[in-house]
Amino acid sequence: MTDLKMPLRDYRFAMREVFDWDNHYAALGNEDASPDVVDAILEEGAKFCENVLAPLNQIGDQQGCTWDNGEVKTPEGFKEAYQQYVEAGWPSLAHSVDHGGQGLPQSLGSILSLMVGTCNWSWGMYPGLSHGAMNTVEAHGTDEQKETYLSKLIEGTWTGTMCLTEPHCGTDLGILRTKAEPNEDGSYAITGTKIFISAGEHDMAENIVHIVLARLPDAPAGTKGISLFIVPKFLPADGGIGERNGVTCGSLEHKMGIHGNATAVLNFDGAKGFLIGPPNKGLNCMFTFMNSARLGTAQQGVAHAEYGFQKSLAYAKDRLQMRSLTGPKNPEGAADPIIVHPDVRRMLLTQKAFAEGGRMMMLYCLQMADRLVSEDEAERKLADDLLAFLTPIAKAFLTETGFESANLGMQVFGGHGYIAEWGVEQNVRDARIAMIYEGTTGVQALDLLGRKVLMSSGELLRNFTKVVHKFCQAEIDNEALAPYITKLNELNKEWGELTMHVGGKAMENPDEVGAASVDYLMYSGYVVSAYLWARAAKVAHEHLAAGTGEEAFYKGKVATTKFYYDRILPRTAMHASAIRSGAENLMELDAEHFSV
Amino acid sequence: MTDLKMPLRDYRFAMREVFDWDNHYAALGNEDASPDVVDAILEEGAKFCENVLAPLNQIGDQQGCTWDNGEVKTPEGFKEAYQQYVEAGWPSLAHSVDHGGQGLPQSLGSILSLMVGTCNWSWGMYPGLSHGAMNTVEAHGTDEQKETYLSKLIEGTWTGTMCLTEPHCGTDLGILRTKAEPNEDGSYAITGTKIFISAGEHDMAENIVHIVLARLPDAPAGTKGISLFIVPKFLPADGGIGERNGVTCGSLEHKMGIHGNATAVLNFDGAKGFLIGPPNKGLNCMFTFMNSARLGTAQQGVAHAEYGFQKSLAYAKDRLQMRSLTGPKNPEGAADPIIVHPDVRRMLLTQKAFAEGGRMMMLYCLQMADRLVSEDEAERKLADDLLAFLTPIAKAFLTETGFESANLGMQVFGGHGYIAEWGVEQNVRDARIAMIYEGTTGVQALDLLGRKVLMSSGELLRNFTKVVHKFCQAEIDNEALAPYITKLNELNKEWGELTMHVGGKAMENPDEVGAASVDYLMYSGYVVSAYLWARAAKVAHEHLAAGTGEEAFYKGKVATTKFYYDRILPRTAMHASAIRSGAENLMELDAEHFSV
Repeated sequence: MTDLKMPLRDYRFAMREVFDWDNHYAALGNEDASPDVVDAILEEGAKFCENVLAPLNQIGDQQGCTWDNGEVKTPEGFKEAYQQYVEAGWPSLAHSVDHGGQGLPQSLGSILSLMVGTCNWSWGMYPGLSHGAMNTVEAHGTDEQKETYLSKLIEGTWTGTMCLTEPHCGTDLGILRTKAEPNEDGSYAITGTKIFISAGEHDMAENIVHIVLARLPDAPAGTKGISLFIVPKFLPADGGIGERNGVTCGSLEHKMGIHGNATAVLNFDGAKGFLIGPPNKGLNCMFTFMNSARLGTAQQGVAHAEYGFQKSLAYAKDRLQMRSLTGPKNPEGAADPIIVHPDVRRMLLTQKAFAEGGRMMMLYCLQMADRLVSEDEAERKLADDLLAFLTPIAKAFLTETGFESANLGMQVFGGHGYIAEWGVEQNVRDARIAMIYEGTTGVQALDLLGRKVLMSSGELLRNFTKVVHKFCQAEIDNEALAPYITKLNELNKEWGELTMHVGGKAMENPDEVGAASVDYLMYSGYVVSAYLWARAAKVAHEHLAAGTGEEAFYKGKVATTKFYYDRILPRTAMHASAIRSGAENLMELDAEHFSV
Repeated sequence: MTDLKMPLRDYRFAMREVFDWDNHYAALGNEDASPDVVDAILEEGAKFCENVLAPLNQIGDQQGCTWDNGEVKTPEGFKEAYQQYVEAGWPSLAHSVDHGGQGLPQSLGSILSLMVGTCNWSWGMYPGLSHGAMNTVEAHGTDEQKETYLSKLIEGTWTGTMCLTEPHCGTDLGILRTKAEPNEDGSYAITGTKIFISAGEHDMAENIVHIVLARLPDAPAGTKGISLFIVPKFLPADGGIGERNGVTCGSLEHKMGIHGNATAVLNFDGAKGFLIGPPNKGLNCMFTFMNSARLGTAQQGVAHAEYGFQKSLAYAKDRLQMRSLTGPKNPEGAADPIIVHPDVRRMLLTQKAFAEGGRMMMLYCLQMADRLVSEDEAERKLADDLLAFLTPIAKAFLTETGFESANLGMQVFGGHGYIAEWGVEQNVRDARIAMIYEGTTGVQALDLLGRKVLMSSGELLRNFTKVVHKFCQAEIDNEALAPYITKLNELNKEWGELTMHVGGKAMENPDEVGAASVDYLMYSGYVVSAYLWARAAKVAHEHLAAGTGEEAFYKGKVATTKFYYDRILPRTAMHASAIRSGAENLMELDAEHFSV
């Protein structure tokens, strides 16, 4: 089986050549993030991911996590890999120097996470959840909380979790029931059951810092009565761990995939917790975490697309089956490699378009995220607005297309793909959760169309369509890009029209928003991606025209752009039709009569 | 968890009201298949499937099959259920009375299989493979072979398999290597390794009859040198079993799903085999089996669509989460049932459209299959041609949309869907194989566009577009159907144009066929389905106009037709664009440059 290789050339293409990354970091004023340092980190990170994490991916799936009387054992090698990761200082990469971090840009930490996740998504969730906890403590914790928890999380000796979901509520956090009752010492006694807690219990670190949503006594009903608490597995003592706290892992879920990650049921029995952020503002504080978690999950789509693409590409070059319809291409062999068949190429190119295009979309978002700390207020505001708009698109579109890619990756293998041995069916199973957790595709779609686009009277959309429009105007005389620019312009315009259309109808019937939402989100994803592929083609054509070498690489970019515009982008028409069809075709049937 | 119920009302709607099933059976001259008998069989069959098989579905997934030194143990309860199935006479339903069968129409046997598969696909594969073996022996066996094997298979005391695939060849059977060397007694010594043999070894029946593809000495190379053999696990003796034959199960595959079915590696070590059919014509004989196996696999798509739909519909009515955007619908509850949300309805209606529409497509095909034994040559020829055309469409389209439905069924459950407990993630894993085995979607698509449509110079397509055209003409003044008829007519015409377009280009470049094939197949599937939904709507409108009662049921049909035409059928535009885009965007990239 071919080993996974991190596509560093493609990372450099997107970062440096498409998004001008060197100047981006320079503009952030982060002097440590020099091009040399960035290159070194990408290369060292890739080595660690390829050599240490990738070999554990299938082991993690086969062994899973095991529960024994509240203790959880992770798969063979997971703990040792985590030790190496901590020793190399990877957890601290993009965190505050005040608490032991290396202070490099957030995006660099996310790029490392993407490589980690591509090689072993389940393993990557342990440090991934820690980053969420770190960001939350960093943004909302007191100095003492930062000193106690953040430094340990940045060091990596402790890991973190986010405890939101309860058996009766996932999306609808307003109805959560976990209680927080004040203790005399200023702490709180937390009581309730949380489910689906990723990395919720394990043997990889000495302590686990749970960030928990709960209700204070007499808190208002609904989302305005939720507060946020730090509940450590072991209470901190003398710069290390002390007494065991009253939070225990009741069981682990048996899941379709991501077996290597422990999805815990956590029982809080008067566990000692510490309020973080203002009372009853827990959900607002949580949004800090949720936005980064959504981008983190968006990465999962790209990870599985890349994994599926690499595995099926290698197989397609190797597997001999049938002859090309245009005559033998491998006359000495018993048959031709299946990559000669047009339909196999269709599947490979779809994966390539989603893996590479998805990576561009991620990097584009990460660039915006870096700018959230800009000192220029206008730049910060624009980045914030663009990111707010792009986050639900990235989360849902990249995980949907990531799942499609993972499935195609399996399809290229034929019957062998269904067998565990090759790892591609695991890739499908692992990819499947990404469309669900951190807000389903449906939830992202409502966030995009309802909360972001319509509630801003279209401004959040216009911010982005202006970017696209400007690009199209600038390239209007670029003959090499002509077919793409025409189409992109057309869709960019239609996007606004569709929005007006739904917005108008929604004033009479709010269900029009939900009825259009998922199609609207997917439409948006294809257009954002079309914009990014046009930019990639522009760069590629420039290099080809200048004869800077690497002709095959740049021709590959041009060919993928053409493929994307010819064969993927027409999906927008289907989504536009569905959007225009309105809510009636969904709402008219009485709930009782869906089936008789 | 809600129990699965066979949708008998919907079976009757499609069979009796849409396809005039009573007259269909009468026209076949099968006097035993009276409406009462058909009803009784459907009802008794449904009871057996719901009460005996459905409860074993998750057990089968959890326990899987276990291999011990060549012996295979099936999951708890599988063997006992099979005994009940045999005792009730189900295996014999649609087989020849000459060998102990009940002689009912083939379609009735298939409808029973569909119900069996909906409740427990893995279990259903054991008798399902037997039907393939029965059909093969019935069509090509000698009288003695029929006496020895067919009667046991019909009785159900022995089961059957089909042994085609080898490690290096699946689709490309021309390169298979298993050898058959003549013994002195007229039998053959079969030597080789077969993989992916469904129901290849198990403990449910006293003997297993393997139908094996192998090469005689000095057979011509390629597909013209393949012969077919019966290789029983135990050699027959005195109307029962005798000596153990030299075929052993080397191992079982670890698969993504269908764990309850044993997917065996079979080692033939000079096993005694008996030639069936003429030497070197094995592949031709095999086509008998393959066509029925493809229709059998098409059923799998419908089975998983129905399963996903029922489970997620029940959940959507029960799960309380968030309020309707148009105001509370369940004000006493903490939240509204999620079926109030438009996007949840979109997912449910998609499943409903594919489950019920898929069932219509299956029944339509089965009606053609029944007519293959017609005494009217013209009718027989037309049925044969229509079935040849529809089989690859049904196989690929129904399994693709079945997988989509299974996935949506899981998506409705949110995070809970990813947990094994509810059975909906199993449904996704089980559904996934259907797009692969018995010829992948890509293989079906080449069969449809290349072998069926273009090689008949379009005749096989025109047979069907004429049927659609006639229907549209007949309903041209039917106001209730007007929006559907207009659209259907338009697509029916475009279908021919697309075919001409590809056919023209293919004369210059045969790769144009492969480049268009999967999009062409999916396009075809959506149009066939649109035709069937229009027929359903016609019947429903007639009943509504006549006031025959069951208003909710018929309104549901009308609403689903509207939904299908508004929100599903526009997918044809995307496929048409991809078809028109041609082969260049797939073929121009050098195989070595897909990734650098």
